[in-house]
Amino acid sequence: MNGPGSGVLERVQRLARHSDSPDHYTRTLFTPAHRAAASQLAQWMREAGMAVRVDAIGNVIGRYEAASAGARTLLMGSHFDSVRNGGKYDGVLGILLPIACVAELHSRGERLAVAVEIAAFSDEEGARFQTSFLSSRALIGRFDAPVLERRDADGVTLARAMREVGLDPARIADARIDPASLAAYVEVHIEQGPVLLDAGLALGIVTSIAGGTRHAVRVHGEAGHAGTVPMARRHDALAAASEMVLAVEARCSAAPGLVGTVGMLKVRDGTGNVIPGEVELSVDIRAPEDALRQAAELDVFAAFEAIAARRGVRVERTKVHEVGAVPCAAWLQEALAASVERAGVAARRLASGAGHDAMILARITDVGMLFVRCGAGGVSHNPAETVSAADVDVAAQALLDFLRTFRAR
Amino acid sequence: MNGPGSGVLERVQRLARHSDSPDHYTRTLFTPAHRAAASQLAQWMREAGMAVRVDAIGNVIGRYEAASAGARTLLMGSHFDSVRNGGKYDGVLGILLPIACVAELHSRGERLAVAVEIAAFSDEEGARFQTSFLSSRALIGRFDAPVLERRDADGVTLARAMREVGLDPARIADARIDPASLAAYVEVHIEQGPVLLDAGLALGIVTSIAGGTRHAVRVHGEAGHAGTVPMARRHDALAAASEMVLAVEARCSAAPGLVGTVGMLKVRDGTGNVIPGEVELSVDIRAPEDALRQAAELDVFAAFEAIAARRGVRVERTKVHEVGAVPCAAWLQEALAASVERAGVAARRLASGAGHDAMILARITDVGMLFVRCGAGGVSHNPAETVSAADVDVAAQALLDFLRTFRAR
Repeated sequence: MNGPGSGVLERVQRLARHSDSPDHYTRTLFTPAHRAAASQLAQWMREAGMAVRVDAIGNVIGRYEAASAGARTLLMGSHFDSVRNGGKYDGVLGILLPIACVAELHSRGERLAVAVEIAAFSDEEGARFQTSFLSSRALIGRFDAPVLERRDADGVTLARAMREVGLDPARIADARIDPASLAAYVEVHIEQGPVLLDAGLALGIVTSIAGGTRHAVRVHGEAGHAGTVPMARRHDALAAASEMVLAVEARCSAAPGLVGTVGMLKVRDGTGNVIPGEVELSVDIRAPEDALRQAAELDVFAAFEAIAARRGVRVERTKVHEVGAVPCAAWLQEALAASVERAGVAARRLASGAGHDAMILARITDVGMLFVRCGAGGVSHNPAETVSAADVDVAAQALLDFLRTFRAR
Repeated sequence: MNGPGSGVLERVQRLARHSDSPDHYTRTLFTPAHRAAASQLAQWMREAGMAVRVDAIGNVIGRYEAASAGARTLLMGSHFDSVRNGGKYDGVLGILLPIACVAELHSRGERLAVAVEIAAFSDEEGARFQTSFLSSRALIGRFDAPVLERRDADGVTLARAMREVGLDPARIADARIDPASLAAYVEVHIEQGPVLLDAGLALGIVTSIAGGTRHAVRVHGEAGHAGTVPMARRHDALAAASEMVLAVEARCSAAPGLVGTVGMLKVRDGTGNVIPGEVELSVDIRAPEDALRQAAELDVFAAFEAIAARRGVRVERTKVHEVGAVPCAAWLQEALAASVERAGVAARRLASGAGHDAMILARITDVGMLFVRCGAGGVSHNPAETVSAADVDVAAQALLDFLRTFRAR
């Protein structure tokens, strides 16, 4: 028996052939590969019985009308750009699974209580112009005009790249959709982590998209000769920073969903025979609830100060960015959980540690997210990223159930 | 009352004017500044009543004959090259103090039981050709011929640089001195660390020159998304490396004279939002006795393995270099200690964490070293390096006493 998910993996492979590079899968905004992928998605949407439009920022949006006129719209979708040398499922799965479900409804002549729109977002990763959530920002009317002057690696501005594909930078505001028309936004996405893999579950319901803070930290100690300064006399910036790394790890291991990472650490003028005098490091802390993250941050930086005081070094820090957690609407979590259970999967709830377009849509409507298990140890943003055919089948089954039972609030 | 040390500091300043750079004190092998310094030293040696020769590797050696013919030679000395932007006392003090003492003997018509030779070594730091102990190696007949082809930053070989100052690379073997002619080698040097400063003592007697080992260590963990991989699921190479840094520090704090330093640490492809997958670090361990160092190394690397096993990461290491400790002769330590005490300073013994020409001379004769307190927090290889006039006076007094009472064994 072929379920609605049966053709999805083949389409993932076909879409991945539209790549900026012949050597690996990379698809960035407004390249020829990106345009070809957009055309392919539009074609599949039309074959699924949808009316297709391309909006002012290049999003491809398919619409499947409701059973009755005047119904609100359930918006679904995800992005079809990628990071450099990325995974083929990231984003794309959240476009192709809904298309497959609508195709199934269309083939049976079924209409739903809501209209369904599927938005294939042109730019979420933002690899070409170092943007983030470009397309979904345009959709909610929060496009950041100055980014039009950003240049790619070849010096081409975003504005020029838009014109080259027939889009008018002056008309981006046209991409805005009317919040009142929306019933909700629901995004399907590969998990990008190992939680479902470890739990042995194909699907998971996202409770919230984690918020996060990034700090740049500098530790000032005292450089010295590695042979002549006794241990007790040292103010080693790296030894202090090492304690700080472990303090981040320990504190952020104290609560589920909380994570803390020192991803960058540099010893200034580091060489084998000199006691490190200065170290810089990054501290990234994320949590599904802001209060949880903020409490961890307070403790972590208090620990840094205590370490610095005990060791006679000085610590400076600058907040580089901060973004609040975005909760998924409880009623959408419940509806998704019910559909997941009817598809035979225990309803595991988990937070998303990564950001998604749903964070942006949450500013104008309720959002829900369904995660699909990530294979290969949970790696993502990597060619090894994978999803099994069985998981795609059960995801399609759950999503179709969700659509059929969906009632706007 | 002017003691023998009274003119030494002024000569340190005068000699420092012969610098490769007008902006800072840098003097490297066979540059015009280096030749000018050599001429100046030779002049001061002659004024002190010494016969002066320049040997085949450009060492300037002054000789003050003994009271009776046939006596052996007490060799003293240190180097007159510097690191880039170095301290003015490093090396030079160990030439100028003995010259001042011989000048004092000469002015009084005193002759000693031994002949005294003062060797101003042309190259110890080796900044120009990345050599080490070039001159003292030539003196003991262990010159390493292949270094003649090494090139400086301008592509000039050492052999060519020698010819340009009138030295014949083919005759380096002539620099060798006869070990049988030597009674001992004694070197005065600025401490280059804070031990005497902390102890409140002008002088110290060196017990041994520390040996050391350097290892290159690589930690292989698992890279991952800083937002999506739960803490308990991580194999963070930097967190593991941080524990290793602290293990080096803790173990090497367990015995006086033992020091351990992680001076270099790099996160491969380190960036704020990625869990570090690979880290490389250097581990430098030094001790005045080889057994002490080797026991520490065993413990440190056993700790590394335990950390790696517990965290599910892998650790690789390569020994980059190893040099054994060089003990100073007990009889020379005793003679120096007696002279230091007669100069009114408690005889503090300490190890040298840095290398000195005495390490090389120890292969052919007994060696002793006298340290002079390093001001400014004990910094060295740095323009802030300093020695007080009072300390130079007491050093000259102790050294003169040592010379007058010296008896060859």
